[in-house]
Amino acid sequence: MSKGEIALVEWLRARFPADPARVPIGIGDDAAAVRLDSPLVAITTDMLLDGVHFDTERHGYELIGRKVMACSLSDCAAMACNPRAATVSVALPRTMAIEDVRELYEGIARIAEEYECSLVGGDTTSWAGRLAIDVAMLAEPMAPCGPVRRSTAVLGDTIFVSGPLGGSLAGRHLTFTPRIALARALAVDPALHAMMDISDGLSLDLFRLCRASGCAAELYADQLAKAISDDARAQAEQDGRSPLDHALSDGEDFELLVVGGQDLRKFKLLPVGAIRPCKPGADLMVISQPDGRREPLAPRGYEHLT
Amino acid sequence: MSKGEIALVEWLRARFPADPARVPIGIGDDAAAVRLDSPLVAITTDMLLDGVHFDTERHGYELIGRKVMACSLSDCAAMACNPRAATVSVALPRTMAIEDVRELYEGIARIAEEYECSLVGGDTTSWAGRLAIDVAMLAEPMAPCGPVRRSTAVLGDTIFVSGPLGGSLAGRHLTFTPRIALARALAVDPALHAMMDISDGLSLDLFRLCRASGCAAELYADQLAKAISDDARAQAEQDGRSPLDHALSDGEDFELLVVGGQDLRKFKLLPVGAIRPCKPGADLMVISQPDGRREPLAPRGYEHLT
Repeated sequence: MSKGEIALVEWLRARFPADPARVPIGIGDDAAAVRLDSPLVAITTDMLLDGVHFDTERHGYELIGRKVMACSLSDCAAMACNPRAATVSVALPRTMAIEDVRELYEGIARIAEEYECSLVGGDTTSWAGRLAIDVAMLAEPMAPCGPVRRSTAVLGDTIFVSGPLGGSLAGRHLTFTPRIALARALAVDPALHAMMDISDGLSLDLFRLCRASGCAAELYADQLAKAISDDARAQAEQDGRSPLDHALSDGEDFELLVVGGQDLRKFKLLPVGAIRPCKPGADLMVISQPDGRREPLAPRGYEHLT
Repeated sequence: MSKGEIALVEWLRARFPADPARVPIGIGDDAAAVRLDSPLVAITTDMLLDGVHFDTERHGYELIGRKVMACSLSDCAAMACNPRAATVSVALPRTMAIEDVRELYEGIARIAEEYECSLVGGDTTSWAGRLAIDVAMLAEPMAPCGPVRRSTAVLGDTIFVSGPLGGSLAGRHLTFTPRIALARALAVDPALHAMMDISDGLSLDLFRLCRASGCAAELYADQLAKAISDDARAQAEQDGRSPLDHALSDGEDFELLVVGGQDLRKFKLLPVGAIRPCKPGADLMVISQPDGRREPLAPRGYEHLT
């Protein structure tokens, strides 16, 4: 066993002390053990890769660590579940300095503490390849009715987003706030019907929600215009694509896509459309202009497997 | 969204149907939900990398899929926990054929079914790098006393291994049987005190158990000789290292390291030594010969961070 590995695991155990009431077995055994409030547990996992989801040549390791946790926290918010515990597996480049590894875990630690999510274990490997990080996060439903799914949209529902979209690669993809607090408020409102997070672009994630719910969606161009981020507008000026196109397909927004009664607007959500019946042969998603013109909207966003 | 990704996720959902009683939310949402028997859940995670833990140039994808699951199943056995659910995150090389991806998941599916562990979710990403796979597995204690740890060895305990060691790279590292059935028998025996699996080599993993339990270990050379695998002997003939050296440090055995009363021998375990008091300045591990000679044993095995 190398001194590097002994030192790292001992540092991790000290940096991530386990609260025995919540985490009877923490870092250092073949498995961790977590005590939950109930026997229904949600689990979400995110694999983030150097050169795809972050860039070690440009981004600090602490921000990278923050992002890997924030992505899973966003999934917890999307399901209306409170994060409880996480494991972090890393494939470290053999050339990576131990100080950089610690900085990565420091970023993980800070956001984990902020959201009261215990780091309970993981796996530490090294190879000739680039940095890969996988987080598995355990969570519990925020409300007695259980996790909120993407498959339970209701005809006539309003479609909301929790914030402006597009252009997140300018920096927001590393620094975004997982919408845990908002999800806690939404989770106990009976007007909430379906939810997911926007990780691959609104047009692609809404497409998935429609497929899962067996419905179609109509987006209103005038409302969409108010859901375009400043980053999307700045990006559009540079690359000639439209700001709306950025908002619909850039991905990595990590805002919530919220579907339910229009009363949910009180949570400062941005309405962008409505849930419509799914008709055979018709477009699953359309954008309608104030003058009544309608254009089909194709799902375009971040493609994981091309 | 590419046709490849849509087709893969739909194939995965069909290939891994969720039992609604056990898995209220399966593949396809932001998180899965699993219903456990109790609110104490164990979680273990293993990151396996091409060129380190398997070799896509030489090993079939189905065997690779089998191995990633088997490693986590072995961790569950080591903690005396029944596997319940797993997530699998993959970083796929962009050049990997979709048929190979399916074959990988087929290997995962078969062993998951064999051990009644539901695949409930994961993450599918692709990049210019090599194949990386991370499994997170949820498990529940086999016995009411909870998970069995590596930190609870008792002075005078016998040290056992569940099978012969060394030379697993000849093939056993891909095809080994996770010792779930054995663990179930051991878990209800009060003579069982501590356990872990041998993943990085007996000398290294026993060293970890001694450190965690605050004890030392004496291994008996004559008993160790009976715990050397045929693979280790064959390997030794080729490379000139001793068979014992292979048995002590090759790693990837995935047998159980079992510590407890000598009565545990009835489970067909191989005794190899005894737990001794830890004395300041003395060696943590020694090998003693039948004639009384004692030699210190250094922890040597698979080094993750060098």
